Amino acid sequence: MDVLGILNLGEIAQYFAKMAMFPVFDLAYYIVSILYLKYEPGSVEVARRSPVASWLCAMLYCFGSYILADIMLGVCPIDYFHNNSHILLATAVWYLVFFCPLNLFYKCVAFLPVKLVLVAMKEVVRTRKIAAGVHHAHHAYHHGWFIMVITGYVKGSGVALMSNFEQLLRGVWRPETNEILNMSFPTKASLYGAVLFALQEGHLLPVSKSLLICLFTLFMVISKVFMTARHSHGSPFALVELWVCHVLFGSPLTGNEDTHDHHGTAPSVPISPVKTKEDLSEGTRKRKSKKAE
Amino acid sequence: MDVLGILNLGEIAQYFAKMAMFPVFDLAYYIVSILYLKYEPGSVEVARRSPVASWLCAMLYCFGSYILADIMLGVCPIDYFHNNSHILLATAVWYLVFFCPLNLFYKCVAFLPVKLVLVAMKEVVRTRKIAAGVHHAHHAYHHGWFIMVITGYVKGSGVALMSNFEQLLRGVWRPETNEILNMSFPTKASLYGAVLFALQEGHLLPVSKSLLICLFTLFMVISKVFMTARHSHGSPFALVELWVCHVLFGSPLTGNEDTHDHHGTAPSVPISPVKTKEDLSEGTRKRKSKKAE
Amino acid sequence: MDVLGILNLGEIAQYFAKMAMFPVFDLAYYIVSILYLKYEPGSVEVARRSPVASWLCAMLYCFGSYILADIMLGVCPIDYFHNNSHILLATAVWYLVFFCPLNLFYKCVAFLPVKLVLVAMKEVVRTRKIAAGVHHAHHAYHHGWFIMVITGYVKGSGVALMSNFEQLLRGVWRPETNEILNMSFPTKASLYGAVLFALQEGHLLPVSKSLLICLFTLFMVISKVFMTARHSHGSPFALVELWVCHVLFGSPLTGNEDTHDHHGTAPSVPISPVKTKEDLSEGTRKRKSKKAE
Repeated sequence: MDVLGILNLGEIAQYFAKMAMFPVFDLAYYIVSILYLKYEPGSVEVARRSPVASWLCAMLYCFGSYILADIMLGVCPIDYFHNNSHILLATAVWYLVFFCPLNLFYKCVAFLPVKLVLVAMKEVVRTRKIAAGVHHAHHAYHHGWFIMVITGYVKGSGVALMSNFEQLLRGVWRPETNEILNMSFPTKASLYGAVLFALQEGHLLPVSKSLLICLFTLFMVISKVFMTARHSHGSPFALVELWVCHVLFGSPLTGNEDTHDHHGTAPSVPISPVKTKEDLSEGTRKRKSKKAE
Repeated sequence: MDVLGILNLGEIAQYFAKMAMFPVFDLAYYIVSILYLKYEPGSVEVARRSPVASWLCAMLYCFGSYILADIMLGVCPIDYFHNNSHILLATAVWYLVFFCPLNLFYKCVAFLPVKLVLVAMKEVVRTRKIAAGVHHAHHAYHHGWFIMVITGYVKGSGVALMSNFEQLLRGVWRPETNEILNMSFPTKASLYGAVLFALQEGHLLPVSKSLLICLFTLFMVISKVFMTARHSHGSPFALVELWVCHVLFGSPLTGNEDTHDHHGTAPSVPISPVKTKEDLSEGTRKRKSKKAE
Repeated sequence: MDVLGILNLGEIAQYFAKMAMFPVFDLAYYIVSILYLKYEPGSVEVARRSPVASWLCAMLYCFGSYILADIMLGVCPIDYFHNNSHILLATAVWYLVFFCPLNLFYKCVAFLPVKLVLVAMKEVVRTRKIAAGVHHAHHAYHHGWFIMVITGYVKGSGVALMSNFEQLLRGVWRPETNEILNMSFPTKASLYGAVLFALQEGHLLPVSKSLLICLFTLFMVISKVFMTARHSHGSPFALVELWVCHVLFGSPLTGNEDTHDHHGTAPSVPISPVKTKEDLSEGTRKRKSKKAE
């Protein structure tokens, strides 16, 4: 009975790990990504003034992970753009999110229950991308541990890692912060996920890849849905990170800017802990977005 | 008689489309490009203070389209630099434009009638570059419509698309604008041209490539010469664009910042409609350039 | 007797040119490079707040030349990261420089006599990198003189050429200057070295490669050790450059900002001659570094 259970779990995991992402899950990924673009202050004006710039930003939000991974591996960065159907689907989503009459599409997908489902589906795609990135790098560099981790990381984080340049495209320049200085939860999770998948790829983790995909997806979905629902920008890694950073880098055990800056501690460092886009609470975002319209 | 006329036109078009660009037309391209570099405020000081930076900028102005297209297609970005004769010719032009005694060379080529001829020749090269870019991308990605358009666009626009980084090389940083937010006429025309050539490449346009090259060159030469002669920065696409943007993106039909900002309408958007370099009227440029010396 | 002397010199040069750089010389390279990173204002806080960003910067300081050269030649930019042992060694150095208890490691390697030895060893590695870069480019482009020089230059200068973007990673943005506008001694020497090695590669210089490596290393070691010991940021090329720039570019023979700006001449150009990192005198650096802790 127990053995059967395990077998079934393995089969379910394998089925899940081989499930096609296009078009349903990818669609959810595009919707949530372009929703985040619309939350960015000024993006609605840019869409009105320069549709080409806005479309390019939307493409970076949807396909930034492929572009960055291709750059990292020295391949044609616009290689993914030969998937005409993917690009057309993302373009349709961009058009509906920004220019749908009465803002109807936006209102539907930004409605919390709908959004929670979409966010969950986005995390499914993210995990698959990390696994695919690590696998691809492993294929090219058999013992290139660092390359595997970097590729997986980049595939999972996507546009966040090039947010400075994506903003520049919209005429915004905020050099005082970037995604690596102030990592948001998805970026951190991508890094840890990339390390796990790289270990699995090197047979240093006693678990099958499909099971790891399954478990990591579960973790990401639960964390992200919970955080989106609670408008929270804390991180489940905070405690462990605090302890590890204390042991390794001598950081103080109390008061970390990333998790406690809403407690009103005066920042003692020159770099202002500006919130990155995925860290912004949903409330702030909606307010900003509404003002922008 | 009529058939003969058509045959002749086809032959002329074919002859024109196969005409070698090097050295005469390329020389004109280099001269006009580096002339535009000299119009940039501060470029003369940079040439005095740091000839290496100025030379690099000049190379970006002359070969930026090749560099960008190579980056886009994942090829060695300095690949074009193995054409020693092209680089040496461009270097000679750069030297003459910036350091010729009594500023003689600059005065000659900036003399309007001469300049009009050179500008016309530059547009011939631009059209050929767009066609070559689309063809090259079509060869690599047979159905990659987006890749074809992007490559052709990049080949036609050249340094304009990386103007932010070209300026950075000269110590200037203007993040509030870029060529995609505020497209100048040549950039827009390159985009539309790339779309046309991509359609032709996919046999969706009932016209031969050589004829399309001929017609598009004619359009570009006439538009650009007319605009240069009249110191105008309007665009022949303005009316069509206004209407299309109104239908597709709900833009207001009256008053577009790109074409009417000299009417004194207060800009309602945060992004200042700074003129891009090819939009600056010749008069302003010359004044700036003279002051710089 | 004389012939024997020449033979011996040739043999010594050949032995020297084939000597393995890893791990001893590379270790010195990493130590000096990461030392320079710690001298940068704000880098210690970044290391505390975001170890990942600091680690990435350290990797750019150690392997920037490989990354840039790979980008220039269109190869996978993180290709070098498959050398796990090199990355781990650099990581260990980074950890020791930034987080060693009592700052012991930093104090040891920043102690002038130790540092002079390390700086000398770094220059040995730099020369080898220039030679390897030119050779690699020569292999790919047999007559690509410009590509050879650019690759060698980039291999010798390393992170300096991308300092703007390396600073951006740490949240610092100084667009008014860059390494090409205000070349420091190592960058200039890399450029001249790349020209020499390119000439040698094309058999235009009547000297063997191993001898050229030997002589150029000797020149670099002596210059850099002398400059580090004297906290000087003058350049042995200053006089020749002044004269060449006067003849070629009409620069005034007296007063060059690069060498004489400490004489109190008011700068007449808008671009402020900010000192680049390798130009900063050691004294200033140590003070800044101490304050930062």
